[in-house]
Parts: sequence; structure tokens; C-alpha cells
Amino acid sequence: MTGSAFARATRVQRRSPSGDEASYDVELDLGWGIGGKPNGGYLLAVVSRAALHAADRSHALAVSGHFLRPPSGGPAEVRTTVLRSGRTVATVRTTLLQHGRPCLETLVTAGELAPTEPDYSAAVPPTLPPPHACLGGPPPGFRVELLEHVEVRIDPATAAFGRDGPKPSGRPEMRGWVRFRDGAETDALALPLIVDALPPTVFNLGRYGWAPTVELTSLLRALPAPGWLACIARTDVVADGWFDEGVEVWDERGRLVAQARQLARVG
Amino acid sequence: MTGSAFARATRVQRRSPSGDEASYDVELDLGWGIGGKPNGGYLLAVVSRAALHAADRSHALAVSGHFLRPPSGGPAEVRTTVLRSGRTVATVRTTLLQHGRPCLETLVTAGELAPTEPDYSAAVPPTLPPPHACLGGPPPGFRVELLEHVEVRIDPATAAFGRDGPKPSGRPEMRGWVRFRDGAETDALALPLIVDALPPTVFNLGRYGWAPTVELTSLLRALPAPGWLACIARTDVVADGWFDEGVEVWDERGRLVAQARQLARVG
Repeated sequence: MTGSAFARATRVQRRSPSGDEASYDVELDLGWGIGGKPNGGYLLAVVSRAALHAADRSHALAVSGHFLRPPSGGPAEVRTTVLRSGRTVATVRTTLLQHGRPCLETLVTAGELAPTEPDYSAAVPPTLPPPHACLGGPPPGFRVELLEHVEVRIDPATAAFGRDGPKPSGRPEMRGWVRFRDGAETDALALPLIVDALPPTVFNLGRYGWAPTVELTSLLRALPAPGWLACIARTDVVADGWFDEGVEVWDERGRLVAQARQLARVG
Repeated sequence: MTGSAFARATRVQRRSPSGDEASYDVELDLGWGIGGKPNGGYLLAVVSRAALHAADRSHALAVSGHFLRPPSGGPAEVRTTVLRSGRTVATVRTTLLQHGRPCLETLVTAGELAPTEPDYSAAVPPTLPPPHACLGGPPPGFRVELLEHVEVRIDPATAAFGRDGPKPSGRPEMRGWVRFRDGAETDALALPLIVDALPPTVFNLGRYGWAPTVELTSLLRALPAPGWLACIARTDVVADGWFDEGVEVWDERGRLVAQARQLARVG
């Protein structure tokens, strides 16, 4: 099989060609997981690929995923329904099923984003030490399978771990650089994965458990340039067991390429 | 008919009781519209009410709507599918149809939000002049039906209109106070409407046309206290005809009650 590790892990194979409704076979790869569960952003990338194929569009402009239950690795199915196909955008509903049970329901608005300069930009890129001065790899004693495919280098000021173990900063914020280890470009399709690649912000409040995503919406704002992507994730409120995580992704040109927010349970 | 204007305008009437799938009759009220089209946030409130009924839950914790085509006023149908009903949350898919055509597809994660104090809050309420010092009503020459039900008072610094007509500030930001005119409480269900109640931020860039929402996701973060709600909407990027609009809603206690972002077309 050819192509990048990401392209292989998000491969979709159309099963039935039946107008506005279709079904795709996928193979969920636990190499893109954490603690034996596929990463939520990875799943969003898989279903987005199916949605783009079904709608015959290039870019997932807005992806909203509501997570029902974590699938295992292995075969799964993505059902797509093209709800509307208009001049500017198409809207696709996708359901990721495994063993006949829905795991992730997603709505994708898809279209063609032109590689133009922004008309207006108020956002400011995060300030980060260069990648070589950031921390790579999982903290001692942890295994994060995803990090074997995705190189994540965390700003030490936000790392939530020191050399000797947990060291929460007290501020639920994470900053880091992200790229694929095999040199593949982190293109537009990779962004739904990238926005979920940093460790949970609430690690910096000392809440180190699994923090399951319940809802994640990601917007594509520009086509990323090749190179590292700078990510910043921030939490505004932790209340009643819920926290938000707002993520911005910037490319090396200093362009905001993705905006995302997720609602997750505190671990 | 009894209850508040908002309760009446978002009334849902279950048609078929059939397990995980149900259908609701609704009556879309153009009094909650702009320029003869129902407001997108109003539509989200209507379908959220159906979703909560279908799942037998109290609060729409995360609502993601992808807009397909604007419906007219009058009868419409909301189809609901409870995708999963778990201990903490239920996830519901809704389709708003009119004349058999889908107009709005939504995913709702629903549950019970406890009226607790936040464990952590980093967000800072917007600074606004008091309501009496803000601007009410549509600008001269405009009719905004929604404003006959929803009192919106805009911070003059962000109003995009002066006494003599358009006066864009140059910064795509809007701040304002919102409440119902009939004194009804802006409860949790009203928030999907409230997050879409301010004029588009891009008015302040001199782009005064209709700015159709393509996707809007709103998170409920706290149950609002009675009284005015303070809203702030900000745009980070305008590019290739698209803009984002991030909205925070705060209650009079200074609690962040809703976080939303929409992707919309520049008018």
C-alpha cells in the first residue's frame, strides 16, 4: 500500500454506490489511538474523508462530531447521506458504526476553500519556543500510540509534566507544535485530527484521567502551508464535570488554519 | 394559549410515538425572523426543544446545527432520532423539514446540568455600558422582526450604525444586552437563540448584507440567572467569503452560560 501513514489509516472504501446514501468500509487503526482507543480527532478525519468522497468536494469546512461510544480498532463502517448539494457547499451526515452500533455521528459542510489571503484577521498566533526547545514524547510511564505517528512538541511552560512526573501549571492551557513523523503534509484533511492531538488542557489542573470528548466542532479557515503547525488549546470553564477546550491551529506562514472547540468530561 | 411568547413560538407537538424515532409538528413564527426568514438561532431552539422531549432530558449541552436552506414561516416538521441514551447524556439527531425538504440538520447532546459553582473559570465577562446607555431597536430604515420579541441593546462602540446611518467601527465585534420583551426568563433553552441574536459582526467591516449561517454550535455551560444576558461576538478571520463568529453569553451573576461559534458567509 502506498501513501502516507495518515492516508493509509484514514482510507475509505466505498461499498455501495446508491445516490445520496452510501456506505464505506474503514479499518480503524489503534496506532492512532490513546490507551487502546482510537483518538477522537482521528475518527473525525476518517469520517470527513468519507463525507468528502460522498459529496465530491475537496474541503471539510465545518465538521461537528458528537461521540456516542468509543469504537475498538479494526473494521468499521461509515454511512453517509448527502443532505443537500448546493452551488457553494454540500452538507453530509455521517454515522460511524461498529458491530452495527453507532459510535460517532457527524455533520460535515463541505466545499472548496480557495488559497487566498484573508480579507481580515484579528487573531494572533501563539508564542511558542521553537520545536527543538519543546518537549516531545509521552511522559515517563505513559504510552500514547498516536505519538508514534504524530510528533507533538509541547511548550515546557504548559507541559503538565516535568522530568520527575506530574507538574500541573494550574492554568488549563496547552501549546505545542504538531507534524506527522513520516514527513507527510498536514493538509486540510489532517486538521480534524490535529485539533485533538494535544493532551487535555485539564492535565494542568492536575486532572490526569481520560477526558472523553462528547462534542467537537472544527472549522477549516485556510489551507495549511507545509511545515510545523502551532496549536494552542485553552479552557474557559470547568463546571459540573464538563470542560470546554478551544483550539487554534496556525501554520508556519502565521495563518490561522483551524478553529475548534470541544466539550469533554473531566477525567 | 398560555406561556411566554418564546414558549409559544418554539412549541413542539409530538405526532408519532415510535421508540427512538419520532416526529414533531412545529409552527415557524416569522415574528422571530429577520427580513422574512426565521432566525437561525430560533430554529435551533425549536429543534432543541424537540430533541429534549424525544430524549426526556432537561438541557441541550451541545447543539450543532448545519443549515441547508432557510424555511419559510408556517408549519414544519422536526424528525428526531435518539442515537444513544446513556447514563450521563443522550445524543439526538434532528432534521427540520418543510414541504418534505430538509432545512436544518442538528445534533444535540442532552443531559442534566447541575446549578453548581464552577470548579474553574478563566473567562472574563465583557465590559459593557449599562442597558439604558446602549442602543435599542433596529437602525433607521431596517425592520428586524426578531427585535419585537427580543430586546437587544448594543454597546454604542460596536453598533455599526450611528444616528445618521452606517458607521462601521472597523473591528468585527458586537457587544450587547439581551432579554425577552415579555419578561419571560431567558432560560437554558433560549440560549441557542440568544447566541444568534446580535447583528453580524461583519457589519462593523461595512459588510451590511444578509450573512447566512452555515454552521452554528452552541455549548451550555451554566444555567442562566434571571435578568439581562450580556453577549459578546467576535470574528477572528474573514477569508474567501467566510467568517467565524465566536459568541459568549454571560448572566448577571457574571457566569459564562453559553459559548458558541458559527461559520457564516459574508453578506
